[in-house]
Amino acid sequence: MDVISYRPEPSEFAWTFGGVKPVRMVKPGDVLELWTEDCFAGKVRTSKDFVSKVIDFPFVNPQTGPFYIDGAQAGDTLAVHFIAIEPARDWAASTTVPLFGALSSTTHTPTLQDPLPEIVWIYQVDKQNRTVRFEAPGGGYAVELPLDPMHGTVGVAPGAFEARSCLVPDAHGGNMDTPEMRAGVTCYLGVNVEGALFSIGDGHCRQGEGESCGVAVEAAMDTVVVLDLLKGLQTPWPRIENDDYIISTGSARPLEDAFRIAHWDLVNWLASDYGLDRMDAYQLLSQIAESPVANVCDPNYTFVAKAAKRFLPTAPAYDGKHEEMKAKAAEYRAGR
Amino acid sequence: MDVISYRPEPSEFAWTFGGVKPVRMVKPGDVLELWTEDCFAGKVRTSKDFVSKVIDFPFVNPQTGPFYIDGAQAGDTLAVHFIAIEPARDWAASTTVPLFGALSSTTHTPTLQDPLPEIVWIYQVDKQNRTVRFEAPGGGYAVELPLDPMHGTVGVAPGAFEARSCLVPDAHGGNMDTPEMRAGVTCYLGVNVEGALFSIGDGHCRQGEGESCGVAVEAAMDTVVVLDLLKGLQTPWPRIENDDYIISTGSARPLEDAFRIAHWDLVNWLASDYGLDRMDAYQLLSQIAESPVANVCDPNYTFVAKAAKRFLPTAPAYDGKHEEMKAKAAEYRAGR
Amino acid sequence: MDVISYRPEPSEFAWTFGGVKPVRMVKPGDVLELWTEDCFAGKVRTSKDFVSKVIDFPFVNPQTGPFYIDGAQAGDTLAVHFIAIEPARDWAASTTVPLFGALSSTTHTPTLQDPLPEIVWIYQVDKQNRTVRFEAPGGGYAVELPLDPMHGTVGVAPGAFEARSCLVPDAHGGNMDTPEMRAGVTCYLGVNVEGALFSIGDGHCRQGEGESCGVAVEAAMDTVVVLDLLKGLQTPWPRIENDDYIISTGSARPLEDAFRIAHWDLVNWLASDYGLDRMDAYQLLSQIAESPVANVCDPNYTFVAKAAKRFLPTAPAYDGKHEEMKAKAAEYRAGR
Amino acid sequence: MDVISYRPEPSEFAWTFGGVKPVRMVKPGDVLELWTEDCFAGKVRTSKDFVSKVIDFPFVNPQTGPFYIDGAQAGDTLAVHFIAIEPARDWAASTTVPLFGALSSTTHTPTLQDPLPEIVWIYQVDKQNRTVRFEAPGGGYAVELPLDPMHGTVGVAPGAFEARSCLVPDAHGGNMDTPEMRAGVTCYLGVNVEGALFSIGDGHCRQGEGESCGVAVEAAMDTVVVLDLLKGLQTPWPRIENDDYIISTGSARPLEDAFRIAHWDLVNWLASDYGLDRMDAYQLLSQIAESPVANVCDPNYTFVAKAAKRFLPTAPAYDGKHEEMKAKAAEYRAGR
Repeated sequence: MDVISYRPEPSEFAWTFGGVKPVRMVKPGDVLELWTEDCFAGKVRTSKDFVSKVIDFPFVNPQTGPFYIDGAQAGDTLAVHFIAIEPARDWAASTTVPLFGALSSTTHTPTLQDPLPEIVWIYQVDKQNRTVRFEAPGGGYAVELPLDPMHGTVGVAPGAFEARSCLVPDAHGGNMDTPEMRAGVTCYLGVNVEGALFSIGDGHCRQGEGESCGVAVEAAMDTVVVLDLLKGLQTPWPRIENDDYIISTGSARPLEDAFRIAHWDLVNWLASDYGLDRMDAYQLLSQIAESPVANVCDPNYTFVAKAAKRFLPTAPAYDGKHEEMKAKAAEYRAGR
Repeated sequence: MDVISYRPEPSEFAWTFGGVKPVRMVKPGDVLELWTEDCFAGKVRTSKDFVSKVIDFPFVNPQTGPFYIDGAQAGDTLAVHFIAIEPARDWAASTTVPLFGALSSTTHTPTLQDPLPEIVWIYQVDKQNRTVRFEAPGGGYAVELPLDPMHGTVGVAPGAFEARSCLVPDAHGGNMDTPEMRAGVTCYLGVNVEGALFSIGDGHCRQGEGESCGVAVEAAMDTVVVLDLLKGLQTPWPRIENDDYIISTGSARPLEDAFRIAHWDLVNWLASDYGLDRMDAYQLLSQIAESPVANVCDPNYTFVAKAAKRFLPTAPAYDGKHEEMKAKAAEYRAGR
Repeated sequence: MDVISYRPEPSEFAWTFGGVKPVRMVKPGDVLELWTEDCFAGKVRTSKDFVSKVIDFPFVNPQTGPFYIDGAQAGDTLAVHFIAIEPARDWAASTTVPLFGALSSTTHTPTLQDPLPEIVWIYQVDKQNRTVRFEAPGGGYAVELPLDPMHGTVGVAPGAFEARSCLVPDAHGGNMDTPEMRAGVTCYLGVNVEGALFSIGDGHCRQGEGESCGVAVEAAMDTVVVLDLLKGLQTPWPRIENDDYIISTGSARPLEDAFRIAHWDLVNWLASDYGLDRMDAYQLLSQIAESPVANVCDPNYTFVAKAAKRFLPTAPAYDGKHEEMKAKAAEYRAGR
Repeated sequence: MDVISYRPEPSEFAWTFGGVKPVRMVKPGDVLELWTEDCFAGKVRTSKDFVSKVIDFPFVNPQTGPFYIDGAQAGDTLAVHFIAIEPARDWAASTTVPLFGALSSTTHTPTLQDPLPEIVWIYQVDKQNRTVRFEAPGGGYAVELPLDPMHGTVGVAPGAFEARSCLVPDAHGGNMDTPEMRAGVTCYLGVNVEGALFSIGDGHCRQGEGESCGVAVEAAMDTVVVLDLLKGLQTPWPRIENDDYIISTGSARPLEDAFRIAHWDLVNWLASDYGLDRMDAYQLLSQIAESPVANVCDPNYTFVAKAAKRFLPTAPAYDGKHEEMKAKAAEYRAGR
């Protein structure tokens, strides 16, 4: 087991998926110890650091990577198991961004109204007690919220020679912004180009479902993943597996299409890996699916569709890859 | 505490919200012991009972009611606390319906493709063990799923002199199809017409989030509710409260508008009842909202937005009405 | 040919399609000379008459009718030929309405932003020169626009025991707001209830496609129609025929579903009345359809899909009903 | 006036906007005589050439270009005036494509239904008589349709380091598929990168509004354009000007967002170039806009919003650039 540690310089950030040269060559089975900057490139630190002043678009949501995975080819699946995701600082930030967010008109749902006010919320992060502290800027209310670290952005290079902004979620992954992407899960990503070109960023100390204002509790992260490759196995949309659930994602607009994609993919997954007839899978999902929304603010909206393993036939997904990668994670932890 | 028992004859079913004469006059504080027929009007009982053969549209989704609540006027809020929701039979049914459901083209998302096959799934209901049994018609797989009874359809007469099909969810409630509508919750409905005209139906033994095929585990129900009235308090969209959460709903198309309505309403609720500044409420919700989708199949899609009470200021919603109604429920149970 | 003249008193306006008693019984072949009030019920007459002050919801968009057509039954088609639509006054009005319109957040696409300002534009109507005069309230620009009178709202009672607000367009017609509904056209409406219950209102001196601010050049109208009945012929969505085009409509959200419905219906119309294979009709429409949008502001958005008759097989639509009704219109004009 | 003639070899086609090296350096004022291949890369020539057999994705919709325009920088506007667009062959092709098109489920609006059948329609092109001939494959109907050549795909490199598939329309232009892009118009494109990197392709002999099956009458084209640069003038979304109209475009999903963008941009255009107050512009557009839909099949849907110049103040758009480029076109024609 090779362990690669990598902390990018600001000049090394990637701002797209695709169209970027790899920062490292790695192998299936390698463990990556990574540092990721927050979505503001670290520039929002006080209540006066308005995005409209401190951020120079498109330099937002920097990614750590991409990593070229030896042997990865279009048509394979890259498995990324999250061993750890830990806030790298003792504070985190959130803001409103003019003409962005689900409860504002936006550049793509434009109206003639004035934008909402720009406000910054700084959260104190208490890693000991596993909390972040919300404080109303005007005073009057504060509350400790559970720390629940996750990555908003995880992906590979897209196909069709495209390069996509790190703000965009789509079939290649990217800015899906689902709280399901936490330590302990395995994420399956379809490979579109030689080397896969895996990148990661946009750590959140926690996030509400839908990420309604468009910004979570944004933080730099120390993250450890182990990688693996499933040769010749296609994964059309990003999937996630944890100990209790298999999870499909879909990213599209309008939001019902994101829902359709996630549930259509989960029907197909139940058919291919669990042997269910597609109509039976459709029926079973209609009664057991858990379908929390991921984001309703990004250029594509993202839905996740979850099926609890306890209701499924006992065939393991992807031939048991999740358990295999958990074993690697345990081995890594033991070796530290 | 008056207890009214009512079991409609088939000729007494309501097929709309609005435009129907009340079946009973009741008072705030009354307990209603109701029987509701399943959404198929009891006509789907075997694997051969295809909806296209046994149902004569629009005679689908029959409602029990409406009840005229003494003193209710436009601008008030009707509170409905669910004391019990119990399957009335030892079986339940689900189906595919041609050109209906999230993974099919429909009458309102039409394509030139052929419809999906029509299939019936009959579930055995085990009230002792609190399960329903899914069986794949072609054999090969069966599984016990937890019984989690709920009502898909709860509502009052709409405003603007409208009468809406019982298949439609909107600001008056109706066919919202959210699993959150289970025993123990209080549902708040804005009153639009004198007497409110409350009806209920569409019991589900359980339902996946999104109700993707358009049909849950459909069952007749024995349901007990207690009613109350909040005079002069407006509720723009249906709200739900349970011991742990306050919950707003929104019903619209496209699905992002249902999301927007639910979260906009929850922001306003946090401002009015909990004293938060609206922008702070928006920020807090962005980090704590739980946003499982309700239905993505009905004429309007429905979202729910949930805020956990443990993260909110201690002011109780609607002046503590939920706790008050729980006390009434306990009183009723004690009196049986 | 019987000619019925009818001018409603304010107390006789209808505010819904469905759920209203007929004001007159008429026969197929009858001519109706009608007066329709403007959508503001005549209450916006100066630049100070803001809708938020002078209109008491839901008393907006009053309809003249409904008319019970003798012999009409569910499953028939009502044909309405427009002989004349003429402004009844020498002025007309338009406004912005808070939280309404395509370039504003709305009650169903809510945001936390402030509403746009409320402004009234009064237009002078010159029937001699066939123009309406736009004047910028702040001065500086004025222009004569061609008078092109139309009805925004035309419909029958919906099915499924529903009553729908006059603001809503759907399969029963209603508030479709398409400029195609001008004098000289025949509108085909599927009958849902005995007597059909035809109503009409919402005259516009002219309207842009999409009616983006939600309000056209609103005017009371003197309108003459002749009615006919096509027994046993179903029309699923409102259709329009003029001398040069057959036109299907669809009303739904999101807007792509309105587009789908209109084009799906036009494919089916080309198959049923013109003998084209459905896939050939789909191909032909892909190359010849004219698809101006009707409204992007009402509770459902409306699209029209037009096929020029010169590109179609020579079989006349609805067995030549449009030509037959034009002959009746000529007979009426000759008899005046 | 320099005239550059360029006919790409198949190996020189561009498959994205952005991420491609320029094929030529040109200057503002240059005329380009271009040949563009059809969207099938010339591979659909008979009724047996199904896209699923002859096309190897993503090698579809090849573009001629990109051209590096000397002096172009982010924040400028590139003006492209179409001098001529003429079919290069005496035939053209259209098809259905599995899981593509407005009246089919698709990869992004997935259902569990079977795809529609794959059919090819070959059109004869008669340049003398200016017609294309539609023939129903099963026989029985044929009709001559007017030749009305246009380019479906016109654009520059996007910003934010992106490279987008040539199938995608967005703020950079691309696959907008509007019939308005015909000879005689000037198209304004905001420049995002040094050199602008202009490409063009996807010629259509004609196209219905909405391009409902997803495929027009596809043809190779001989096209002549003249280019110019407006330094320091930003154009947020592609605009088009012809002798009678100024036209804004918007590309997004759902379709109402494409409508919003196009009309919001046209309001802003009326404010900036014609001196109208934004609210007056909104009102005026509500009464005069012509809003035919462009495409309802591509990854983003495209709307155009048109304002007739005869209803506008006399200030010319972009300081009269359209008339200036028409003069250049006349000069080019005189010099041939």
